[in-house]
Amino acid sequence: MSFPSLTYDPATDRPQEECGVFGVRRVADASVLAAFGLHALQHRGQEACGITSYDREKGRFTTERHLGLVGEHFTEPKRLERLTGDMAIGHVRYSTSGGSSMRNVQPLYADVRGGGIALAHNGNLTNARMLREELVAGGAIFQSTSDSEVILQLAARSKQPDSIERLISAFTQIEGAFALVAMTNDLLIGARDPLGIRPLVMGVLDGATIFASETCALDMIGARYIRDIEPGEVVIVSDEGLETRRYAPARPAKTCAFEYIYFARPDSVIDGISVYEARKRMGIRLAQECPADIDVVVPVPDSGMAAALGFSEELGKPFDLGIIRAHFAGRTFIQPTQAKRDLGVRRKHSANASVLRGKRVLLVDDSIVRGTTSKKIVRMVREAGATEVHFRSACPPITHPDFYGIDMPMREELMAASHEPDKMIEMLECDSLGFLSVEGLYWAVHGEARNPESPQLADHYFTGDYPTRLVDQNRAASSKDEQLSLLVDA
Amino acid sequence: MSFPSLTYDPATDRPQEECGVFGVRRVADASVLAAFGLHALQHRGQEACGITSYDREKGRFTTERHLGLVGEHFTEPKRLERLTGDMAIGHVRYSTSGGSSMRNVQPLYADVRGGGIALAHNGNLTNARMLREELVAGGAIFQSTSDSEVILQLAARSKQPDSIERLISAFTQIEGAFALVAMTNDLLIGARDPLGIRPLVMGVLDGATIFASETCALDMIGARYIRDIEPGEVVIVSDEGLETRRYAPARPAKTCAFEYIYFARPDSVIDGISVYEARKRMGIRLAQECPADIDVVVPVPDSGMAAALGFSEELGKPFDLGIIRAHFAGRTFIQPTQAKRDLGVRRKHSANASVLRGKRVLLVDDSIVRGTTSKKIVRMVREAGATEVHFRSACPPITHPDFYGIDMPMREELMAASHEPDKMIEMLECDSLGFLSVEGLYWAVHGEARNPESPQLADHYFTGDYPTRLVDQNRAASSKDEQLSLLVDA
Amino acid sequence: MSFPSLTYDPATDRPQEECGVFGVRRVADASVLAAFGLHALQHRGQEACGITSYDREKGRFTTERHLGLVGEHFTEPKRLERLTGDMAIGHVRYSTSGGSSMRNVQPLYADVRGGGIALAHNGNLTNARMLREELVAGGAIFQSTSDSEVILQLAARSKQPDSIERLISAFTQIEGAFALVAMTNDLLIGARDPLGIRPLVMGVLDGATIFASETCALDMIGARYIRDIEPGEVVIVSDEGLETRRYAPARPAKTCAFEYIYFARPDSVIDGISVYEARKRMGIRLAQECPADIDVVVPVPDSGMAAALGFSEELGKPFDLGIIRAHFAGRTFIQPTQAKRDLGVRRKHSANASVLRGKRVLLVDDSIVRGTTSKKIVRMVREAGATEVHFRSACPPITHPDFYGIDMPMREELMAASHEPDKMIEMLECDSLGFLSVEGLYWAVHGEARNPESPQLADHYFTGDYPTRLVDQNRAASSKDEQLSLLVDA
Amino acid sequence: MSFPSLTYDPATDRPQEECGVFGVRRVADASVLAAFGLHALQHRGQEACGITSYDREKGRFTTERHLGLVGEHFTEPKRLERLTGDMAIGHVRYSTSGGSSMRNVQPLYADVRGGGIALAHNGNLTNARMLREELVAGGAIFQSTSDSEVILQLAARSKQPDSIERLISAFTQIEGAFALVAMTNDLLIGARDPLGIRPLVMGVLDGATIFASETCALDMIGARYIRDIEPGEVVIVSDEGLETRRYAPARPAKTCAFEYIYFARPDSVIDGISVYEARKRMGIRLAQECPADIDVVVPVPDSGMAAALGFSEELGKPFDLGIIRAHFAGRTFIQPTQAKRDLGVRRKHSANASVLRGKRVLLVDDSIVRGTTSKKIVRMVREAGATEVHFRSACPPITHPDFYGIDMPMREELMAASHEPDKMIEMLECDSLGFLSVEGLYWAVHGEARNPESPQLADHYFTGDYPTRLVDQNRAASSKDEQLSLLVDA
Repeated sequence: MSFPSLTYDPATDRPQEECGVFGVRRVADASVLAAFGLHALQHRGQEACGITSYDREKGRFTTERHLGLVGEHFTEPKRLERLTGDMAIGHVRYSTSGGSSMRNVQPLYADVRGGGIALAHNGNLTNARMLREELVAGGAIFQSTSDSEVILQLAARSKQPDSIERLISAFTQIEGAFALVAMTNDLLIGARDPLGIRPLVMGVLDGATIFASETCALDMIGARYIRDIEPGEVVIVSDEGLETRRYAPARPAKTCAFEYIYFARPDSVIDGISVYEARKRMGIRLAQECPADIDVVVPVPDSGMAAALGFSEELGKPFDLGIIRAHFAGRTFIQPTQAKRDLGVRRKHSANASVLRGKRVLLVDDSIVRGTTSKKIVRMVREAGATEVHFRSACPPITHPDFYGIDMPMREELMAASHEPDKMIEMLECDSLGFLSVEGLYWAVHGEARNPESPQLADHYFTGDYPTRLVDQNRAASSKDEQLSLLVDA
Repeated sequence: MSFPSLTYDPATDRPQEECGVFGVRRVADASVLAAFGLHALQHRGQEACGITSYDREKGRFTTERHLGLVGEHFTEPKRLERLTGDMAIGHVRYSTSGGSSMRNVQPLYADVRGGGIALAHNGNLTNARMLREELVAGGAIFQSTSDSEVILQLAARSKQPDSIERLISAFTQIEGAFALVAMTNDLLIGARDPLGIRPLVMGVLDGATIFASETCALDMIGARYIRDIEPGEVVIVSDEGLETRRYAPARPAKTCAFEYIYFARPDSVIDGISVYEARKRMGIRLAQECPADIDVVVPVPDSGMAAALGFSEELGKPFDLGIIRAHFAGRTFIQPTQAKRDLGVRRKHSANASVLRGKRVLLVDDSIVRGTTSKKIVRMVREAGATEVHFRSACPPITHPDFYGIDMPMREELMAASHEPDKMIEMLECDSLGFLSVEGLYWAVHGEARNPESPQLADHYFTGDYPTRLVDQNRAASSKDEQLSLLVDA
Repeated sequence: MSFPSLTYDPATDRPQEECGVFGVRRVADASVLAAFGLHALQHRGQEACGITSYDREKGRFTTERHLGLVGEHFTEPKRLERLTGDMAIGHVRYSTSGGSSMRNVQPLYADVRGGGIALAHNGNLTNARMLREELVAGGAIFQSTSDSEVILQLAARSKQPDSIERLISAFTQIEGAFALVAMTNDLLIGARDPLGIRPLVMGVLDGATIFASETCALDMIGARYIRDIEPGEVVIVSDEGLETRRYAPARPAKTCAFEYIYFARPDSVIDGISVYEARKRMGIRLAQECPADIDVVVPVPDSGMAAALGFSEELGKPFDLGIIRAHFAGRTFIQPTQAKRDLGVRRKHSANASVLRGKRVLLVDDSIVRGTTSKKIVRMVREAGATEVHFRSACPPITHPDFYGIDMPMREELMAASHEPDKMIEMLECDSLGFLSVEGLYWAVHGEARNPESPQLADHYFTGDYPTRLVDQNRAASSKDEQLSLLVDA
Repeated sequence: MSFPSLTYDPATDRPQEECGVFGVRRVADASVLAAFGLHALQHRGQEACGITSYDREKGRFTTERHLGLVGEHFTEPKRLERLTGDMAIGHVRYSTSGGSSMRNVQPLYADVRGGGIALAHNGNLTNARMLREELVAGGAIFQSTSDSEVILQLAARSKQPDSIERLISAFTQIEGAFALVAMTNDLLIGARDPLGIRPLVMGVLDGATIFASETCALDMIGARYIRDIEPGEVVIVSDEGLETRRYAPARPAKTCAFEYIYFARPDSVIDGISVYEARKRMGIRLAQECPADIDVVVPVPDSGMAAALGFSEELGKPFDLGIIRAHFAGRTFIQPTQAKRDLGVRRKHSANASVLRGKRVLLVDDSIVRGTTSKKIVRMVREAGATEVHFRSACPPITHPDFYGIDMPMREELMAASHEPDKMIEMLECDSLGFLSVEGLYWAVHGEARNPESPQLADHYFTGDYPTRLVDQNRAASSKDEQLSLLVDA
């Protein structure tokens, strides 16, 4: 959703999901429901949030976009009272440590002939830079550096007579990953990229149609799940009901594997598969593939919980909470100058010595990216009295970066991309290390083998097998390095 | 600079100037000088302020735009330290009582092929709405509702190869009033509309060229005045020096009469004429045209000061400060529910009874718009003990609205447009009332008679003689009433 | 720590802990360590936080007190840089839904003859109102309505020559619960109430002494635990080392049972007992006392986790995460007007249907106060597809309020105080309900039977057996109802 | 009102007035009237403002205290709506460049037995430090470092049975200057120091009694002036009406000369003398004492306006506005590093060259303190083209500091205290320099000669003749240098 990623968060050593979207049409309190829905999707982006509503009596779009959490901004009655109307779309955006800018906060908006288009987008386009250059050459003025604006500019330029056709025209030109909701001064639409890399579901509440990145947003507001939007599909909601359009051929979704591994909320169901169950099965399979002679299975909370439960169950060894996670937000603390230990990790995790002392501990986490946090956790667990510390990753070794909206470090920083197994054990200072196999991942998610012709998941992180062309990536280096905008906003 | 004016401020009963601009190229501390320059132009707009700088080493534009006063935002070192580079432009925007939006704060910016354009504009276009509709039909996405953005969109659309030509191409399409400074990633330009309605001057400091709305901004930073930009002229500043271009034929400036009457700072010199002296001469002439048998001449501070001095001198009656003006800012105060008197006027002006008691007082103000404040002042002066209260306006009766960037009430609210002299005396509750004649105005400003073929001032306020076509104004009503944007921003 | 409690939070239906304290003497970065320590104690109070440091070179105390979280305020370098010196104390204060006031934020401070006293207090005094009235009658001006200020006023009034004696003199006059740290312009002290109701521990880091409410604060900064402060003990830290004083006879601590049940962080150790282990044993004993024929044991996260693990282990039924807790902060959301369901509970908890569907579910929570949230959770679990929902409280029925610093609803609102078991099952809409017995609680915490002569815990919540006199509570009603201050601050 | 002054503002080179007070009893909208009244007194203090109201139905005092201007804070309806009740007092506090603290913002408040006392004080006590030490030794805890709190602590300590007697008891112990309003939960009082150094007037509006520092606050709200409070008098307003009490013998007021010279608003009347007229007479007398052969008399605005008018009238030379004052607030701007001229002075004043060019100019200012700003103004006027620049001060040479609430630089920084006339001309770079004589000052204010036995003004600035003992000033140096509080607040 934003160009070259500067936003991988080294404090957690986790790739960062980039955005969640929500839309609802023809219901009282549309913006209040959007606020609840976005709150349920907050894990998909904590940097910024926004809601745009449309009031058909006034013929007005109203927007509120803010840096920070949904619960900080959309709990204020006066904000929601501004957002009148029975149609609304919303967006949450990922968290960055560095400087982010208001101009990239969504929903985006354009006045076009005969109306307006508001748009919220999750995902990353692989030809956005090329399209942007063409649009600028044609006189377009970009306000943001987000590739989502490319979609809006294409729609504005389209010669199609109505807003929906303008958007569909844009969909046929963009490549990459996108789940998006858009709203005109009449209609609500939901659309998913041709491969279905990013998730998008449809539900219903009191007759009103809802689109959301995950089912947990439907559950939050008591809506009923209808189905996932299909790859290459656009669903148009009007007073006449639902109309479905295809701008790309029908095919099964090739959902991003990391949605199952880490991003999605465990209580969500993506393309018919429970995220929680998939994670638990990852742990079960991991126990089969990499068992160990240990006393206790300890999850790295919260992301390793489900896999650790599966692991413990399969191995027949007790599951216990040897690491406590702090639940209070906060920026990075200043380090004391003379402290002998790095206190950073303890800000989020602390060792529960009563569980660890004198034990052979097996830690289960969902993944290992750079390994920096894993190393600190291993050390903390050992200092708390564990006699052995074994580490297990509930996903395969990550060796390749992503270009579809997941923020990862450069390839050379990915631990598994540049180190042999023995070296990794040494780096993490653990007694043994194990990763789920790629086949194990498919077994856990789909219960079937990987189809090498057309893998059922976007699994390039582990295989280098990218599901689409990488247009911008493959262009001349000079073009790639160019800044998207010469302007640095406040 | 903004479309149909909702911003006339009834608390002062004064038309509102709309914006001041400043630009400087190739000097250390460019943004610091811009901050001082804008501070000197603060009287031209108190709603918002912004500075954009260009750093040629980094190849970056940086911008800071804020609601509020220059002295509130650009006194913070960290803001100015962000604004690196030796070239900067800035803008102050007028104050409104109602809702204003960050999206209209200038300087505006666009990335174009091969660079960037930043722009700050003072004035109003008379064909902006028509151009905007054409641009939107062509796929342009407007971020603001300001007509300044029309200039930027036209420049972005231009097929000209370089940014200066793009801007000049835009100037040839727009009509109305504009004094603007713009900056590319190389050049600084200053341009004035074909008739020179809005002022723009050029100065020099340590070899660096400066553009500013008024000479007082040059004085503030110790720069030397060079000359006024001519109507229809574009001055381009490069490393090679100054280049002058014309996009409209040479002709004498037809400067807005209200710059001399009220807007400009008294220590400024516009088109070679001292504003202070012009005002004083308005008072002298007013005394000749409408004398009275009184004891003391009292200015309505601060706008009536110079004219009152001239009046007093000419009439040979003492000048004294019978009205005190409070100098502390503040929003409108809540009125006590049971107070018998309207306290609003006293928030800004209070009567100095020791000067007024028992006297026949003649009040001199620069102008009368709706007359509401004048009436309160007359009443306040009488309550303080004046035996007679005579009122004099140092400009002619205002009977017509403005379309060039001056915020005025609708015609039906203009006191002189809809009332006979006797009725006005009754309304203001004064003992006599007098206005400067149009001929008197010309005598005071230019020392010569009005040329009815081509008046030397934009004097439509008093004559209805508009200096340009009014394209948007004359279009079909339906088009005029349409909202510029369906979006209501926060 | 504050008078009559208005702050029980109905959104979680949990009593509210009131405050955590921290102190450190003679270490570089004293205030940075205090910030980390308070972050570890954040669960004890989220309303406000403060740090006061003493710089012996400058002879100055410096203070920073703020509404909000430690991670919001004490991560800003400029704040910590202000707090110079090698001695610091800090405080976190509980969260309230209603109006709280800056004037009650701690540490408190007084200049006394020859120096200053800064003080941070956790707990509630039972004779504070009476003492306050006496002090006011004697001319004392109270700035806050907190009973902590009573301690400071008593110290200021004391005729003792030095600050430590002044404080000890105050300790002998107050009754109730208090764990406090105080700092003069030389010494640091830690003190615990005569019965040891509130916890306070001592640790060491690089030779510097540290006091903290819980051991988790020591772990956070890598300090070594030394021992718990004893009931009635004052530990004075000077350049000469530690000195211990008693102002009340030695006796075993009678720690508040709710520290073990809910308040303390699970990785803390209080009076030698691991909080996590005590909670797990509560679950084990609960399984023995109230088993059920079910398919899955589900914790109400996070407070029921440890007990649910124990319950599952003892019952031999799987533990699974059937309820997901959202980890993003936020105020109460506006409810949609037409939604048929109360969405409030889902803001914090959501059902994980894949675990619950078609199952007989047993929910374990740490306690039930009013039962309102429990009821919503039962309903949510049932709507997610559970065929049976059984509820277990890992503590005994709560029938009596607290007067020692724990914020609880009035007695008539306590579910177990006013309802028979059958009625409670009906209220919660569950299939069965079970509570841990009082004996079970003692077995879990102390591994021994309750001593009815002198219970080893402050267990009045369940027994009505208050460990101290209730001076203010037993005074004439008129006096009790009087406002503590006539002033309402902003 | 605050201890040894660190707050003289070098940017204006003016002593700083310290505070204005306002009180009103039994009127609807009491706090709204207070807001208007304080707005009229804003020139007496721009650092902070506060209002405390008393609502007799609720039996509650409510307070709002803020850093900043009245117009910034008390124009918000929600603030005034909080301040319910028909009695209110308010305070404005002077502006400082350095760090000020919320804890010193007034009104102050204390709960005492049987009620509350709120207090707002203008002036400085000369024995506050000594009293403070005694009070601290007796156990009092001071929250602020203001000497106003001494009055409140003395009242709280008093053994008198009711609040008015407590306050009067305090008045008999304090020395120095004070004009204060106080409010109990029944009564409003106004009191002035034994010599009447600081002004305080009484008015009436719709039957409600009002106290204010100056008559301009009465005029603002349309109240009628009754009389000045007398030196040593306390006026008590109850439901029964007004009661007057004396705590010191009757005598004529010895008002601070600087109230007439600079502090008070020109439209105020103090002790029966119009401030504006006094200033104009200072100019008349100055013209008699120090005439010059010049072309134009130019005031340094705004403080020199009235005197310059008098001077011009007496000398028979034209008065003109050769210096323009900017009316937009703002902190000190960053200076450009390479600018050859100090731009600071131009932020507030700019030269109006059309008036100055080629002229022999005589500048009139109200006073000269350090001379730094005067020097810059002289230089600016000369650079604008004046051929000669003569400087006149409308008050005598300032040679002694103040201890009654006026913030001045140390004696060694006072230009006239340490330099001979010739040296001063050299310093200011002017062509001639003249000061009003002390006798001239008395003639201008009182129209009679100075009574050397008991001067009719507090004129120590010029004579060193202090009207009271200086208890704190004359104590041992060690005691004087001690900090008032060891605490540095945020």
